[in-house]
Amino acid sequence: MDHFQINAVAYVINGRPEVSDDFWGEVPSIIRLRDDLPESTLAGLDEFSHLQVVFKFHLASPEDVHLGARSPRNDPRWEPSGTFAHRNHRRPAQIGISHPRLLKVEGRDLHVVDLDAVDGTPVLDIAPWFAEFGPRGEVRQPGWPTEMLANYWARSS
Amino acid sequence: MDHFQINAVAYVINGRPEVSDDFWGEVPSIIRLRDDLPESTLAGLDEFSHLQVVFKFHLASPEDVHLGARSPRNDPRWEPSGTFAHRNHRRPAQIGISHPRLLKVEGRDLHVVDLDAVDGTPVLDIAPWFAEFGPRGEVRQPGWPTEMLANYWARSS
Repeated sequence: MDHFQINAVAYVINGRPEVSDDFWGEVPSIIRLRDDLPESTLAGLDEFSHLQVVFKFHLASPEDVHLGARSPRNDPRWEPSGTFAHRNHRRPAQIGISHPRLLKVEGRDLHVVDLDAVDGTPVLDIAPWFAEFGPRGEVRQPGWPTEMLANYWARSS
Repeated sequence: MDHFQINAVAYVINGRPEVSDDFWGEVPSIIRLRDDLPESTLAGLDEFSHLQVVFKFHLASPEDVHLGARSPRNDPRWEPSGTFAHRNHRRPAQIGISHPRLLKVEGRDLHVVDLDAVDGTPVLDIAPWFAEFGPRGEVRQPGWPTEMLANYWARSS
């Protein structure tokens, strides 16, 4: 089995410390590039509306990994499905991928919304969203993600 | 600086050994789950049309990382842009993200097309594509990715 070391390149700043399943709408965040990485690594990123951000679920412990099938959010409304049919922190890599909207770039700070990661989250990679590299052809999915995510992008009251 | 160890969970099988910028159209691949991971981790994945796959650019060497701005594909037609405005192997994490179409699941084998990774590529994570978690709102990008990728999804002759 191969294993790889991956370093954080940036950190999330948003003043939202608590892990939460829902209400990520309109949460503003800053992705702050590490001091020792040159600002020129961000050149031209501001021409893209969206990013693809890989981050570490750093508040999860290794014991949270679950290898098998379980109901999403442990809710019996939904049939059990597998670790790799979910997108939560219980996967072996304990990484998440988010597609925030980039509002502006200021020095080493990327100002974004729709980044569903808590304050202090280590960011492992930042890339622009290329339309050419999204899913190709018709997209199909079962009903449970849409039901489960009914309040995901709602605003916190 | 935080660093994290991430293990391969699967490997790509497609008989395409050479690294190549273009002609990924219709290339079939198998993503084969590690023997020691239970098949139940894939339960329900077949209800999704597309995956989000994180893989390691394992043929790249650490010296290939470039921190700064350069013209995409070193082509002077395009203005220099930064490491994090690109999606190639020259990024610190040396990972790629692809969104292949899932054709079928057979035991530990995920049969896909549109996975732009060479034979033997270690896969660090597999997740379904949720429409809810894609870019939200209008997507905008500069002209160079579309120009650069004119033959990316063309068929190899």
